Amino acid sequence: MTTDDLYVAKIRNGTVIDHISPGYALDVLKILGIDGREGHIVSVAMNVSSKKASKKDIVKVENRELKPGEVDKIALIAPGATINIIRDYKVVQKDRVKLPDWIKGIVKCANPSCVSNAGEPVETKFHVERSDPLRLRCYYCVRIMEKPDVLKQF
Amino acid sequence: MTTDDLYVAKIRNGTVIDHISPGYALDVLKILGIDGREGHIVSVAMNVSSKKASKKDIVKVENRELKPGEVDKIALIAPGATINIIRDYKVVQKDRVKLPDWIKGIVKCANPSCVSNAGEPVETKFHVERSDPLRLRCYYCVRIMEKPDVLKQF
Repeated sequence: MTTDDLYVAKIRNGTVIDHISPGYALDVLKILGIDGREGHIVSVAMNVSSKKASKKDIVKVENRELKPGEVDKIALIAPGATINIIRDYKVVQKDRVKLPDWIKGIVKCANPSCVSNAGEPVETKFHVERSDPLRLRCYYCVRIMEKPDVLKQF
Repeated sequence: MTTDDLYVAKIRNGTVIDHISPGYALDVLKILGIDGREGHIVSVAMNVSSKKASKKDIVKVENRELKPGEVDKIALIAPGATINIIRDYKVVQKDRVKLPDWIKGIVKCANPSCVSNAGEPVETKFHVERSDPLRLRCYYCVRIMEKPDVLKQF
């Protein structure tokens, strides 16, 4: 392989997260807790051409399937993402992430005076007012949270 | 393209950093100050097979050439890396990073009592005792610095 050849990274088993909002692939890796030192093949492409949108990011992770909490976090920062599960080189399942109307227990309210930050047994809860760009409203204190506020927590 | 196909990310102009120590591609992106939101194509492959070593990482960055200080930082964390400059889809220059015997002004000494941390006009200076795994010795206070100490600063 010469460095100007196409680069190839096929995975036998794992997950491909496609149609990530352009520029957010590294945040997806952060959500998955992947820094590369795990030793598995990981490939990332950022700002590549896409048919659906003008640009997109892609993340491929070998030997890893996603947990439901991870999928919900990805939906928050990349609402158009698709999750493809690969087994024996084939896509055996393909799902688009889905941002629910209410986000519970995944992000904290940025308002320090919110009842959900008072040490009480209160699960955080936000209404999804808009998915892209993200706009969440806290159920308890009506504080508005946007994508940068959420990214800081991941 | 289906998701189990090979992924292609050819760049017209830019830089390919190849033979990065496995698991350190994201640190290289951090050194370059790239988070993907710049809008250029960036592709990363981690823990892929290599002829020279057993595994390696690769980073490709569109529309970006490296500054000397960046190359020196990459040499510290990935002493076997090669820097390939691409113009019009061709490799026009290929260099292996070179870790000099002395590292000056790039990393800070981890010893808070070191004279180089005293606010004096003293440039930091370390002797490279070993490149892989990295072992630096401060010229002033003889404090040993290893790769994790250096990574924290990038």
